Amino acid sequence: MTDEKSVTVLGLGAMGSALAAAFLAAGRPVTVWNRTTGKAGELVARGATEAATVEEAVRASGLVVACLWDHRSVHQTLDPVAGALAGRVVVNLTNGTPGQGRELGAWAGEHGFALLDGGIMAVPPMIGGPGAFVLYSGPEEVFTAHREALDALGESVYAGPDHGMAALYDIALLSAMYGAMMGELHAFAMVRSAGVAATGFAPLLQRWMAAVGGFQDRTAELVDTRDYTRDVVSNLGMQAAAYHNLIDAAHEQGVSPELLAPLYPLMLRRTAEGHGHEDNVGLIELLFTRRRTT
Amino acid sequence: MTDEKSVTVLGLGAMGSALAAAFLAAGRPVTVWNRTTGKAGELVARGATEAATVEEAVRASGLVVACLWDHRSVHQTLDPVAGALAGRVVVNLTNGTPGQGRELGAWAGEHGFALLDGGIMAVPPMIGGPGAFVLYSGPEEVFTAHREALDALGESVYAGPDHGMAALYDIALLSAMYGAMMGELHAFAMVRSAGVAATGFAPLLQRWMAAVGGFQDRTAELVDTRDYTRDVVSNLGMQAAAYHNLIDAAHEQGVSPELLAPLYPLMLRRTAEGHGHEDNVGLIELLFTRRRTT
Repeated sequence: MTDEKSVTVLGLGAMGSALAAAFLAAGRPVTVWNRTTGKAGELVARGATEAATVEEAVRASGLVVACLWDHRSVHQTLDPVAGALAGRVVVNLTNGTPGQGRELGAWAGEHGFALLDGGIMAVPPMIGGPGAFVLYSGPEEVFTAHREALDALGESVYAGPDHGMAALYDIALLSAMYGAMMGELHAFAMVRSAGVAATGFAPLLQRWMAAVGGFQDRTAELVDTRDYTRDVVSNLGMQAAAYHNLIDAAHEQGVSPELLAPLYPLMLRRTAEGHGHEDNVGLIELLFTRRRTT
Repeated sequence: MTDEKSVTVLGLGAMGSALAAAFLAAGRPVTVWNRTTGKAGELVARGATEAATVEEAVRASGLVVACLWDHRSVHQTLDPVAGALAGRVVVNLTNGTPGQGRELGAWAGEHGFALLDGGIMAVPPMIGGPGAFVLYSGPEEVFTAHREALDALGESVYAGPDHGMAALYDIALLSAMYGAMMGELHAFAMVRSAGVAATGFAPLLQRWMAAVGGFQDRTAELVDTRDYTRDVVSNLGMQAAAYHNLIDAAHEQGVSPELLAPLYPLMLRRTAEGHGHEDNVGLIELLFTRRRTT
């Protein structure tokens, strides 16, 4: 009989190892397994048990956390032991898409085990610390039953019963981060092209981003209502007219405008379609490639 | 003889009008001019004088602020009155590129007047309020002499003697903002594609962006030292391997990945060139289209 507090962690990359360490730090018996050996030494020294096979690892705990390379490796690892998973809870924290999360949820249902699909919003050193949060989707009662255990990793945020939602939120958040990164890389390239120290420019950039960030609530309201005409301060047409300065200036400075380029045709198209007087948030309408079904 | 406190504002679009109103609010005599008539009524009611011609407007003040449509309209407006500008100070707050700022600075020198080229980091309703700041570049003594007057518009930030620097900083900051906007539009599109309310997602997005923002100081240090190997937590190669999830998920959800797309080939190229173990800030090295001269 397994200890009801015990947790199994499959996959000991940097993230999987951090997850196992956080469970150990929370006082839980931890069983670990990795496809290749030699990754468990430090965890075993801290009290973890290394399983020789996936099946042995799975049978050691009621709660099985998978943090593998990709969706394909999740199936390669779990398919052979599907019988042993029946009645257990699998928390899949492997990076994947919403569709992969849904596929895994359906597959879990067929094999009689419960699945939470998750998305970790942290890098390994942050796991178990105050800044980390982890998204989970799947049956709410399963989330509730295991929340205390999962809280060892970071704050647990429930994203809904649809198994795809944690990956969807995860990917949406990462997308927002990479957009900000694209903008900042371009900004620093512009500054360096003029021979100016990036460290001299950084405080101005921080100040500016703090001033123009934080409008997510307004953006969200416009997105939900699909009314982009309300309280418009700087309209899309004016921004579209000025945007070529950004492209021209990049060329002048010998900086490729490729990171900023994709917004410009959308601005021109939306303006040409008669929405120049509206908020630029309306550009979102051009991003949907198929008719909405909802 | 002109009142030494008086200011002339050329151009009464939304921004020019806001500038004139801020100078009036600061107790300065203000003369205004616009290419087409009928824009000055409210300002005149508040005490401004409307000039019938550009020359009359220019001769009314030692400090002439231009806020016109574009660089071309600056020349169209000022070229005919270049003689009248001699000995005055022109502050050009028209949107433009660094090269245009430098061109105007040289042209001012030829005609015996001083130029500050500026960049307004605010929308019109913010002018004169606490959040606004305005960048200026050109001769430092000219900036210092007129700083008090210019502070009526918002905090005055000196960007250096090179007339192109205000536009460069302005454009770099706007570029960073548009990058963040691209990321957030994509994020909201992903969420809406799943039938989830954007307003429900916004708090999570705010929290995440607050957690991952604020790394500009570190980024700037890496950019200046060109050492992208220091204290790498999540390396480029791992991020490149996971980035296709973002693209795949967008396709799954019927969302165009076009706003995020340009980062991916850069990630793959930089990784292929042997920098996969480094920080993703090193991607900046791929943005320079010509050999650095500095």
